[in-house]
Amino acid sequence: MRIIHIGALGTLGKHIARTLKERHEIVTVGRSSGDFQADLTSLKSIRSMYDKAGHFDAVICTAGSGFFGPFTEMKDEAFRQGINSKLMGQVNLVLEGFERINDNGSFTLTTGILSDDPVPMAANLSTVNGAINAFVRSSAIEMPRGIRINAVSPGLVIESLADLGPYFPGHVPVTMERMVSGYLKAVEGRQTGQVIKIY
Amino acid sequence: MRIIHIGALGTLGKHIARTLKERHEIVTVGRSSGDFQADLTSLKSIRSMYDKAGHFDAVICTAGSGFFGPFTEMKDEAFRQGINSKLMGQVNLVLEGFERINDNGSFTLTTGILSDDPVPMAANLSTVNGAINAFVRSSAIEMPRGIRINAVSPGLVIESLADLGPYFPGHVPVTMERMVSGYLKAVEGRQTGQVIKIY
Repeated sequence: MRIIHIGALGTLGKHIARTLKERHEIVTVGRSSGDFQADLTSLKSIRSMYDKAGHFDAVICTAGSGFFGPFTEMKDEAFRQGINSKLMGQVNLVLEGFERINDNGSFTLTTGILSDDPVPMAANLSTVNGAINAFVRSSAIEMPRGIRINAVSPGLVIESLADLGPYFPGHVPVTMERMVSGYLKAVEGRQTGQVIKIY
Repeated sequence: MRIIHIGALGTLGKHIARTLKERHEIVTVGRSSGDFQADLTSLKSIRSMYDKAGHFDAVICTAGSGFFGPFTEMKDEAFRQGINSKLMGQVNLVLEGFERINDNGSFTLTTGILSDDPVPMAANLSTVNGAINAFVRSSAIEMPRGIRINAVSPGLVIESLADLGPYFPGHVPVTMERMVSGYLKAVEGRQTGQVIKIY
């Protein structure tokens, strides 16, 4: 398959891309690096990336950010960080991409454990994750031409423990191999409308 | 309790307000009707409503809309209808309201069955509902001063069957009484961070 991977050079993305490129062609997309560039907060930038990237069988997104900070200091502008990046960035990859993707292609988005199992300071990311989970469940039933859509929902990965562990008290970390397996299942499997929980 | 009810004159809202006003003071808020007015898509309008409404013990929101139409015809602009109204409208009622609400006050938002059990043409509303569910779970753990936050998630109510039934094949409608009971539980009960499913 020819797979467009947005965030292929990121913390999680590089492990996924390394495994997938053993048997697929990976087109890497970053904000300022990769084969092509895209800013997820810009609809124009997403369209331009697709215009340049050519035909494809799958899209993986492991990019997108949100506001991380105390709820009591969060107002509309901060909350919109996650809405405009991790949520609408991924939604627009699908809305702009589903007419371009090959028959029976797939979209694999990234959500996360925080929608179900929240920690302090992460209400924006929790909300965005809950939105993405529902987006894949609902859009899957309207996809034309056999196109599939799923999300992978990673828990805290062991490799992030040093940086993020203190913010996730009591969370049991998962291996990077297990996290990667979720993306393999989404891309190479046949399920659709699923949130693949890696926790 | 003194309860600010946004959407108190709407299809669902009027039944809730009628029951609650037997034992509470209801301050009704509509877009162009009610004791005070608010446009949920406008942060300024929400702030202005709170400035006028005075002290309060609870906020109920049964207002907010989204895009309803074929997935294949939906782009960023249509998708943002639900983001800006039903999602950010309700989020901003909380972000702007939690410093104003009395100790041990409560916010009760409205989500819906579509986050879990989608129907065609409703991907925008499904997504928004999933976001609200995760928002109440995550923000509840950071609320100061005993403030609670919950969401009521109604299924199709019997009274909407004539208008909406054809869009919800196989959905088992619920009574208006049962729907109202969800709001009573959220406002008069003590739980927090819950999505109260009425289906």
